[in-house]
Amino acid sequence: MGFFSYFSAEELVRIHEATLTTMETTGLVFTYEPARNLLARAGCKIDGQRVFFPKKLVEEQIRKAPSQFTLYARNPEKNVVVGGDHIAFIPCYGAPFVNDMDKGRRPGTLLDYNNFVKLAHAVPYLDITGGMMTEPNDIPISHRNAERLYSSMVLSDKPFMGAGTGPEDAIEAMEMASIVFGSREEMAKKPPFVSILCSLTPLGFDDKMCGAIMEYAKAGMPQLISSLTIAGATGPVTMEGTLIVQNAEILAGITLTQLVREGAPVIFAGSSSASAMRYGTLSIGAPEMAVNTAATAQMGRFYNLPVRGGGALTDSKTVDSQAAYESMMSMMMATLSGIHFVLHSAGILEGYITASYEKFMIDSEICGMCKRIKRGEEITAEKLALDVIREVGSGGEYLTHMHTFKHFRQELYAPVLEERDNYSNWHKKGSLTMEQRANAKYKELLEKYTEPSMDPEMRKELDHYIKSVRNA
Amino acid sequence: MGFFSYFSAEELVRIHEATLTTMETTGLVFTYEPARNLLARAGCKIDGQRVFFPKKLVEEQIRKAPSQFTLYARNPEKNVVVGGDHIAFIPCYGAPFVNDMDKGRRPGTLLDYNNFVKLAHAVPYLDITGGMMTEPNDIPISHRNAERLYSSMVLSDKPFMGAGTGPEDAIEAMEMASIVFGSREEMAKKPPFVSILCSLTPLGFDDKMCGAIMEYAKAGMPQLISSLTIAGATGPVTMEGTLIVQNAEILAGITLTQLVREGAPVIFAGSSSASAMRYGTLSIGAPEMAVNTAATAQMGRFYNLPVRGGGALTDSKTVDSQAAYESMMSMMMATLSGIHFVLHSAGILEGYITASYEKFMIDSEICGMCKRIKRGEEITAEKLALDVIREVGSGGEYLTHMHTFKHFRQELYAPVLEERDNYSNWHKKGSLTMEQRANAKYKELLEKYTEPSMDPEMRKELDHYIKSVRNA
Repeated sequence: MGFFSYFSAEELVRIHEATLTTMETTGLVFTYEPARNLLARAGCKIDGQRVFFPKKLVEEQIRKAPSQFTLYARNPEKNVVVGGDHIAFIPCYGAPFVNDMDKGRRPGTLLDYNNFVKLAHAVPYLDITGGMMTEPNDIPISHRNAERLYSSMVLSDKPFMGAGTGPEDAIEAMEMASIVFGSREEMAKKPPFVSILCSLTPLGFDDKMCGAIMEYAKAGMPQLISSLTIAGATGPVTMEGTLIVQNAEILAGITLTQLVREGAPVIFAGSSSASAMRYGTLSIGAPEMAVNTAATAQMGRFYNLPVRGGGALTDSKTVDSQAAYESMMSMMMATLSGIHFVLHSAGILEGYITASYEKFMIDSEICGMCKRIKRGEEITAEKLALDVIREVGSGGEYLTHMHTFKHFRQELYAPVLEERDNYSNWHKKGSLTMEQRANAKYKELLEKYTEPSMDPEMRKELDHYIKSVRNA
Repeated sequence: MGFFSYFSAEELVRIHEATLTTMETTGLVFTYEPARNLLARAGCKIDGQRVFFPKKLVEEQIRKAPSQFTLYARNPEKNVVVGGDHIAFIPCYGAPFVNDMDKGRRPGTLLDYNNFVKLAHAVPYLDITGGMMTEPNDIPISHRNAERLYSSMVLSDKPFMGAGTGPEDAIEAMEMASIVFGSREEMAKKPPFVSILCSLTPLGFDDKMCGAIMEYAKAGMPQLISSLTIAGATGPVTMEGTLIVQNAEILAGITLTQLVREGAPVIFAGSSSASAMRYGTLSIGAPEMAVNTAATAQMGRFYNLPVRGGGALTDSKTVDSQAAYESMMSMMMATLSGIHFVLHSAGILEGYITASYEKFMIDSEICGMCKRIKRGEEITAEKLALDVIREVGSGGEYLTHMHTFKHFRQELYAPVLEERDNYSNWHKKGSLTMEQRANAKYKELLEKYTEPSMDPEMRKELDHYIKSVRNA
């Protein structure tokens, strides 16, 4: 399968050169002293907190990061390759609120968080369970990191996302994961989770993010170096200008990781979009978001790095047509442009503010459809079916042909929630909307959920850990 | 801007060769004797109604069709180029039913038809008004063709779609258009409309379609040669097999047009999809529809012909999340894979059965977003904005910068219906869904609609024509 390209090869080079110029002459602010010291030793000029990156250093360092890596799940059948021809779908991340048809919009709780882990575990099209689908607002902030990780490891055997909240939480994540996945050295070889760390746009990194970036890099644990530049707010309003700011931030972060530990796995992670000028809000449902996704995929390929972009993104406040088509726009763009890691593939609503149960299920269907498209075809004589075409001829039918029976399960995507029946049957079944079917489906999945088994010794140790946190 | 490719170049050649083999050895049924006679004279073998196409003949003839052409609107500012780097969006076609929130689902009427012409005229992202957005069921069948054409020419000054119903209607369409657009010779040079003619899948053409194809070709009027093969029903269940059946039908039709008149403009038109095996229905919301769109775009490029595919297609029975994301899937695929002519870009619901007023408006927004993406960028120093990035530096903002003010209108798509405000403002405004806003918007557009002026002599003659039809 080919890739959609938004920019030409020459245009990419131009954006790359402009990025390096910005890194060298405008520089980026690093408030974290250990990062500045390391960058200075590598040859960066420093002025106060501002770091100027020599072009050669950046080009040298980013080449050291691997072009793909594997996340090792508790269940080896669920290992996930990040990079190459693969695409991985990961649910929503960081939403303070949750929403469903029955109870409406409210702050997320640990119960909601656990429900989303269970749903992400149950949906075959989601590859990684996520790490912060919603914020568990009902428990003390100091417990949240441990509780999230505990649930991720116990309630699912898929890879998961680690702490993206600072160096202490990063260390705790590795400590807890170590109970299940072995020593730091073993995890560096077979990492079970990936974390997302973000720049402070424009052109900066704060202490917490920088500290965590360095901790993860030191441990050889995979991480997204992510930029969300908002065209017209935290970046130039032009696509090119915003791309340069995004690029400079990601490359600066990746350069830092490789100086900490050569070969530390990273994901080139762009999630820039546009501001809604009329309201002064961020718009993640804008076509400019899809444009940035395509451009980010191209830049990632240019640097030979795994790349993050897209998602089931929307500005809509409710699960409606806008939410659905904006989500599909960015999911299709991610699929067709060669993105490897699609965070926010399920559930997100209101520009990252809310995790919706119904949208989680609807987006899961979108993930399934995108995976069908991404799969592509392998042409064989059997699939060309010239003999079958000759046999059926003009005016015949294929429905009852053995060839159809033999191949339809492989060839045709089988929808979970979609209505494909005729109007009168649909009407007889109660004229249900997709949203209503999604509401029923998430409840069904939670009801049918069974916890994957875990080694009792590991489980005991994990339980012991979480109890000590709860009693602290 | 590049194109998304589903198949590799070698795979395309393989499908092309398999298509020619099918045309040569399996052949296609043409029930229309004049077509068979013409094809026989060109060297086709004939067996009863079955026509076997020599490979060389097909390759020779399809090369004669132009790679792009222009539709000349009554208002020259609304001319539409079909082919090249352009994409044209055309509304729904052929729906027997209409639907809106207020009155529900019912058979379409002439009033509905006229309303859709007015809406297609008003929406800037729709390039051609369409020709049969809904069937005017409330008037005699014998009047419908004339009434549709009359409305298309009077209520809008955009290009429109002609008769796709048979040779008599095709002749009437040219006769009526001639009142406004000049003689047959003038219209051959500057065609004002395009028509859609379809194969009888699998591997056939009936009298009506064949007759119209030959009439239009003779007149040099542009036409879509269209195939809707249903994988697993009227074509093999494999994507490759269905593509071969589709390809054979389109190439047979195009060969016929070029034998009638060398250089007659045609559109390579694929709209094949999958059957929903569980229900025995056609599914146009399936991911296989998007796959076929990408493959069709590639085949069209391979033959250097303008190509039709995609649309705001859905199997949903109601305007919900399913309708929205299925529509965006096929619209994005059409946009990114290089389709030129996108029929059904607005309003279609229930797999071609119903034209929805609300969906018409929602899909129009999708068209606007796809056009924004398709536009691409032209990189300049001003757009790279390195000076602006340097000036703002780290931690600054771009919202109040002159560069943002200067460029935002060009750079950022301005949505018509989308909600991008924050949650509390949205709530204060009445918590409206996209569907509710679309309902209000279509009424607003109809209320604000003003008829474009027309030369009084032409109008008089057109009125005279339609009156004679009504009194017949």
